Amino acid sequence: MTRFSFTLHATDGKARTGTIRMKRGEIRTPAFMPVGTAATVKAMKPEAVRATGADIILGNTYHLMLRPGAERVARLGGLHRFMNWPRPILTDSGGYQVMSLSDLRKITEEGVTFASHLDGSRHLLTPERSMEIQRLLGSDIVMAFDECPRADRPRDEIARSMEMSMRWARRSRDGFDSGGQHAADAALFGIQQGALDEELRRHSAEALTDIGFDGYAIGGLAVGEGQEAMFATLDFAPQQLPVDRPRYLMGVGKPDDLVGAVERGVDMFDCVLPSRSGRNGQGFTWAGPVNLRNARHAEDTGPLDPRCTCATCGTYSRAYLHHLHKSGEILGAVLLTEHNLAFYQQLMQAMREAIAAGTFAAFAARFRADYRKG
Amino acid sequence: MTRFSFTLHATDGKARTGTIRMKRGEIRTPAFMPVGTAATVKAMKPEAVRATGADIILGNTYHLMLRPGAERVARLGGLHRFMNWPRPILTDSGGYQVMSLSDLRKITEEGVTFASHLDGSRHLLTPERSMEIQRLLGSDIVMAFDECPRADRPRDEIARSMEMSMRWARRSRDGFDSGGQHAADAALFGIQQGALDEELRRHSAEALTDIGFDGYAIGGLAVGEGQEAMFATLDFAPQQLPVDRPRYLMGVGKPDDLVGAVERGVDMFDCVLPSRSGRNGQGFTWAGPVNLRNARHAEDTGPLDPRCTCATCGTYSRAYLHHLHKSGEILGAVLLTEHNLAFYQQLMQAMREAIAAGTFAAFAARFRADYRKG
Repeated sequence: MTRFSFTLHATDGKARTGTIRMKRGEIRTPAFMPVGTAATVKAMKPEAVRATGADIILGNTYHLMLRPGAERVARLGGLHRFMNWPRPILTDSGGYQVMSLSDLRKITEEGVTFASHLDGSRHLLTPERSMEIQRLLGSDIVMAFDECPRADRPRDEIARSMEMSMRWARRSRDGFDSGGQHAADAALFGIQQGALDEELRRHSAEALTDIGFDGYAIGGLAVGEGQEAMFATLDFAPQQLPVDRPRYLMGVGKPDDLVGAVERGVDMFDCVLPSRSGRNGQGFTWAGPVNLRNARHAEDTGPLDPRCTCATCGTYSRAYLHHLHKSGEILGAVLLTEHNLAFYQQLMQAMREAIAAGTFAAFAARFRADYRKG
Repeated sequence: MTRFSFTLHATDGKARTGTIRMKRGEIRTPAFMPVGTAATVKAMKPEAVRATGADIILGNTYHLMLRPGAERVARLGGLHRFMNWPRPILTDSGGYQVMSLSDLRKITEEGVTFASHLDGSRHLLTPERSMEIQRLLGSDIVMAFDECPRADRPRDEIARSMEMSMRWARRSRDGFDSGGQHAADAALFGIQQGALDEELRRHSAEALTDIGFDGYAIGGLAVGEGQEAMFATLDFAPQQLPVDRPRYLMGVGKPDDLVGAVERGVDMFDCVLPSRSGRNGQGFTWAGPVNLRNARHAEDTGPLDPRCTCATCGTYSRAYLHHLHKSGEILGAVLLTEHNLAFYQQLMQAMREAIAAGTFAAFAARFRADYRKG
């Protein structure tokens, strides 16, 4: 079995469709990866996640290192066995979540010292330790450890941060490569930084390409800059990365974000939005997001989305989903999360088919005509 | 199709096994009915409830009349269609939960005036309105409307309450019988009261038998009197009821309660315990209840119960269930509820088989030897 390969099947404008092959399975691109923060895609059994069409899920190094702990997961046979997901898992490096979730952060060249949001315990996360944690978890796609500054910081601060992230990328590469059998089985992705600046992004892409990675992520977006600025950056950033490697836009996004990013050459995505929205009563449809708590759904016997092929839409009425969410019932979170993840996968499948057919521009135009942003 | 029949297949001591046949399906007795309070067995898809072995579930009139409302459920096609459970549903009368959950109760001969715990709105529940609500829901087994006093009230108060409940049983019978097609499809059960008093229980049983019901419930137990007092009452109460009709002990109970009650001639049960415990981290096993939040499970790779045939025990470790419950993950509630309901159904199936084989006494002795109460 091949450790990691990426085959492009078709391109349509900048949009691409292909297949990543790894030992634990294939990943059809453009791919959406549901987020399994704490060794569970929230409210979903793993077989239900797979039934939505997901080829790969994401696990969070920050959460897992704190609870249950990377060494413990390793003793229990690794993350795949622990959570009963036999297919590929991508783990983030912990860098972004340490910045956004933990207390008392101190960043030095060595790494980040922080206090756990769970119990205040102090931890040091470095490129080397991040690689070790992701190896202990048994990750299939390991992410380099980086710093992710806010996009609105001064340019010189963004530049210094990006340059440190590139030094950390080198240390991540070395740490990953020293991982023995895991390095022979898994893949390592570098992360481009540089915020909204084309020149910094180019420097970052060149630094990463010099090191060499299996795939390249676009980091530092979806951090509050807005869709217009994000798309402006995606007008150049993906093309700065190697054409023969998958490009992964981290933490994105809304359905219309995904369409615009695929249009600009992105191959992979992850986001908590479909699962978090599912718990909060927001359902995604081809006509736009729907708030199922709204009283207008109380006697609506129709499905959430008549075009959706998921079990929720095939079985339950908007009236029932409304009732469950108004009542705070766990089943409401379960059914709507399942729908949202299935909707996202149907959207990805539709994009893959449109790219293969050379009709992506028409698909995107039709999508935007039908989809009313929430 | 027969509206309602009860066939006894075997008796063993006082224990009985049989089959109730109704238009929507068969109910194997002794039967445990999972509670679907608000049109959902909490945290469970209906197909998963069925997969545990449940033949029938219970719906709560009090909750459903307040949200989404009985008339609304009727407009949406009835409770079965609303929640996607095509098999029999038993609905309680609302009497017990009005007493225990609502505010500002006033009880008169006519019925109970109360304020909703959701929004303070005022409602009147009478035997006639309870029958109407259960008809609007489309219930298969309708329960007579009764008052359920605490077992520790003075005997004359228990007696007066029981006598009023018997007058309400007559009005329930008349209200049910005026329900047109629903009365031709569904069944009506009376509810014996009289707390722990053998003579009052006999008077109640005689009054109900004079009216005539499809089945008879034993009400007013499992309200804090303790297992010893409950078993002492069950030493006589079931035998006061017609031998050719199912006997239903309402709101019971723990696994050892079920074994002791079947031993004393009870055929049907309902209880929130397996589902509520599943949400709170308590799992039932043949060795007794297990608190999965306990740190001793953190690295236990074994299943919750090695004898259990449910998907949770076949797939996940105690360590994973521990992690999910420590982390407050919805999947923890889903997996443990599924196990607990499956365990309860396996217990009922084991009792049915032991009765049919004439080995119930040995089964009960073995159960008690293995089962350490929590």
